[in-house]
Amino acid sequence: MPADSPLKLPALDPAEVTTSIGSNYPEPFKLRVATRCKQRLGDALGLKSFGVNLSTLPLGAVSALRHWHSHEDEFIYVLKGELVLVTDDGEQVLAAGTCAGFPAGKADGHCLVNRSKKVAVYLEVGTRHPEDVVTYPDDDIVGRTSPKGRRFTRKDGMPY
Amino acid sequence: MPADSPLKLPALDPAEVTTSIGSNYPEPFKLRVATRCKQRLGDALGLKSFGVNLSTLPLGAVSALRHWHSHEDEFIYVLKGELVLVTDDGEQVLAAGTCAGFPAGKADGHCLVNRSKKVAVYLEVGTRHPEDVVTYPDDDIVGRTSPKGRRFTRKDGMPY
Repeated sequence: MPADSPLKLPALDPAEVTTSIGSNYPEPFKLRVATRCKQRLGDALGLKSFGVNLSTLPLGAVSALRHWHSHEDEFIYVLKGELVLVTDDGEQVLAAGTCAGFPAGKADGHCLVNRSKKVAVYLEVGTRHPEDVVTYPDDDIVGRTSPKGRRFTRKDGMPY
Repeated sequence: MPADSPLKLPALDPAEVTTSIGSNYPEPFKLRVATRCKQRLGDALGLKSFGVNLSTLPLGAVSALRHWHSHEDEFIYVLKGELVLVTDDGEQVLAAGTCAGFPAGKADGHCLVNRSKKVAVYLEVGTRHPEDVVTYPDDDIVGRTSPKGRRFTRKDGMPY
């Protein structure tokens, strides 16, 4: 079989996977991550216990509000470009070929920012856990898992 | 911070992570995957619910005996080079930038072979599940999870 044949499951060419732009955050947070792009590779491959996204951050884009998960491990691996990782300890520059991991329950909010002059691409992997709560140290928002996906309220439980 | 500064957790440069060569299969299977190299990035980052390995297959190397998992999802993403994916349906060539996924419980044995003339590098992610059983359709071996890692017996339960 030549290398340029179309792939069939269980193999997948990410170019065949739909790109989602932006987030499902409520306003005013939605605007802050409006240019983040994700391709849900894990879903396309039928995986259930963790998600895998191929994520693209254009110039100036942010991966997410700074956050941490109560029950879900997260892993990111930079494929292309350069990203700034922001955590409680400050900032680090992640070049292509480097990675980061965020253990479930570790109260250290993190996000990635593209402050470079080139598009950045990374893989992100996250466990799926029905009791997960997402804490956003810098913003008045909480995320909880529901059968319909992540649901957001204010920190006092009030809806947006 | 310049891009060449040493990274600190939760960030990690894979170059800092120990490489394990070969497998913990019993003989005569050990010899078949003797040149497979893995760097356990997920463990180095403190992740528990899934493993992430940066794996290198030199020319002629095989990722594993052809196998499938009862309770663990698996995902691979080719970073460099070209790999042949072998499943029940035959073979497909995976170029850098393509991926594959193996849902838990799907009885389709798979492995990767480097039949090219260059080293191949891929990321692999797998859930960790205490009840996982690994089935090897082509070989007289079964893998079960134990507190000390994967344990192998013959298909009739006899030890190696």
